[in-house]
Amino acid sequence: MRQPSRRKDYPYFLSYQTRWSDNDQYSHVNNSVYYHLFDSIVNTYLIEQCGLSPTSSDGIGLVVTSYCSFYRPLSFPQLLDLGLRVLKLGNSSVGYEVGVFEQGEDEPAAVGGYTHVFVDRITRKSVQMPEKLRDGLEKVRVQDVQRSKL
Amino acid sequence: MRQPSRRKDYPYFLSYQTRWSDNDQYSHVNNSVYYHLFDSIVNTYLIEQCGLSPTSSDGIGLVVTSYCSFYRPLSFPQLLDLGLRVLKLGNSSVGYEVGVFEQGEDEPAAVGGYTHVFVDRITRKSVQMPEKLRDGLEKVRVQDVQRSKL
Amino acid sequence: MRQPSRRKDYPYFLSYQTRWSDNDQYSHVNNSVYYHLFDSIVNTYLIEQCGLSPTSSDGIGLVVTSYCSFYRPLSFPQLLDLGLRVLKLGNSSVGYEVGVFEQGEDEPAAVGGYTHVFVDRITRKSVQMPEKLRDGLEKVRVQDVQRSKL
Amino acid sequence: MRQPSRRKDYPYFLSYQTRWSDNDQYSHVNNSVYYHLFDSIVNTYLIEQCGLSPTSSDGIGLVVTSYCSFYRPLSFPQLLDLGLRVLKLGNSSVGYEVGVFEQGEDEPAAVGGYTHVFVDRITRKSVQMPEKLRDGLEKVRVQDVQRSKL
Repeated sequence: MRQPSRRKDYPYFLSYQTRWSDNDQYSHVNNSVYYHLFDSIVNTYLIEQCGLSPTSSDGIGLVVTSYCSFYRPLSFPQLLDLGLRVLKLGNSSVGYEVGVFEQGEDEPAAVGGYTHVFVDRITRKSVQMPEKLRDGLEKVRVQDVQRSKL
Repeated sequence: MRQPSRRKDYPYFLSYQTRWSDNDQYSHVNNSVYYHLFDSIVNTYLIEQCGLSPTSSDGIGLVVTSYCSFYRPLSFPQLLDLGLRVLKLGNSSVGYEVGVFEQGEDEPAAVGGYTHVFVDRITRKSVQMPEKLRDGLEKVRVQDVQRSKL
Repeated sequence: MRQPSRRKDYPYFLSYQTRWSDNDQYSHVNNSVYYHLFDSIVNTYLIEQCGLSPTSSDGIGLVVTSYCSFYRPLSFPQLLDLGLRVLKLGNSSVGYEVGVFEQGEDEPAAVGGYTHVFVDRITRKSVQMPEKLRDGLEKVRVQDVQRSKL
Repeated sequence: MRQPSRRKDYPYFLSYQTRWSDNDQYSHVNNSVYYHLFDSIVNTYLIEQCGLSPTSSDGIGLVVTSYCSFYRPLSFPQLLDLGLRVLKLGNSSVGYEVGVFEQGEDEPAAVGGYTHVFVDRITRKSVQMPEKLRDGLEKVRVQDVQRSKL
């Protein structure tokens, strides 16, 4: 079994203020909100580091599968640190993992992610990632997570 | 590999109007929204059929893992049909699966779900499900999905 | 002072399932959610009755002001009925009012709305509404609300 | 007519990362999202500066009216600065105004707010604000906005 990830395992970070509406009626950040955060850090990285323009790029990334494991509750008004890494990188698809951290904590409160398939904006058929996008993703790719953990 | 589920595989259904904000800037229902819908059908079932009161029951269900696979895009203002079934039922945990259907379609546009662990409202330690709740979940439980598909 | 509106005052209705995430940590539908519902009924009406295509129409409606008054709390898993009417109709702008009703109730739990200004999709400059759109809005326009209430 | 507010008019500020889901299909921050942000800065201030505990305080603030005017569009992945001030302060109610700013901009992109009435957590009847809460609100109260603008 893979060891759980730590802060140092993520090469790219962004902090997010939690919002009042993130807490559900059990007074903790609702499970769905983590997926909104995954979308936010992934797309910020794609826009700012990989040349994606959601309104004009020929290829756009659509989510085909997603998942999350929740280890410890989080709650508004905490400030969260999100870490991003790429676990798999193909010609038209990429698998991201996001670690969600409380400030000052080394172990993640949750770890999840999703697989993006890049498709043509109009036809929605699978397309190759542009070189600039792939190069950007390569920079946060983690080589061989499984073996390095042995 | 398991065959994909169909409408007939889900014993409990609710319809949901999509909302303007469900569509993201790619003009389809955003991946995170499906998890909001899972929460909605699961908790409606727990409240209306299993005696759960989110504001006063001793035991409440917290999500520990969740996942979703997306097969076909959906888009506001479509009306969606959600189907619910229980795949695993333990003493303190339950695994739900939700199928998301377009009106009139037999194959799901997405299938996902999550595992709830029932915990004490105050201490958040794992507790046994009350009998009424477990009985309610038993009614939508699918026996042995894996084998029945062979 | 204007008399509060009633069900009969709204010519167009849609029902919306509340969602788990609509309830905030005070266990009632959060104030922001009403605005999501306003967006949903207004745009459904514009798309289904007035020929608007959010992805391709030349003119699109942008919100310039919005407001809401909250009279009685609502709570998941209630089913809500929303009523829509147009209070003001100009050449490029329209003022909508939405009444939010519990099932079976004649008095609204909340009343709010917003002003849409129609703008060119690309330049975002104000444009005249197309005739089909204006005709559709005219059908749910309430003539002279102020005077009729005297 | 009141002059529009500026950065200097707000005594308390918080920054919020926009999220992917804040953009609607017109690729700008949706009007409803501003109300989520109002809730977030108001409640952060109440919790961190005024002693409010959403899960245990006897009195909680419920929104009775809200409004917003939108001057300029905002868009993910912008970082937003929110300013908070109190315009009216009664014994059981308070009127907040929030200015929403782009980084580096002196004029707000949107200005809105809401009125909170403090009620008993259980009975939901109006109650007096505790002294600590009122003192905290007094610190961000703007005296006589109308006259000072003449």
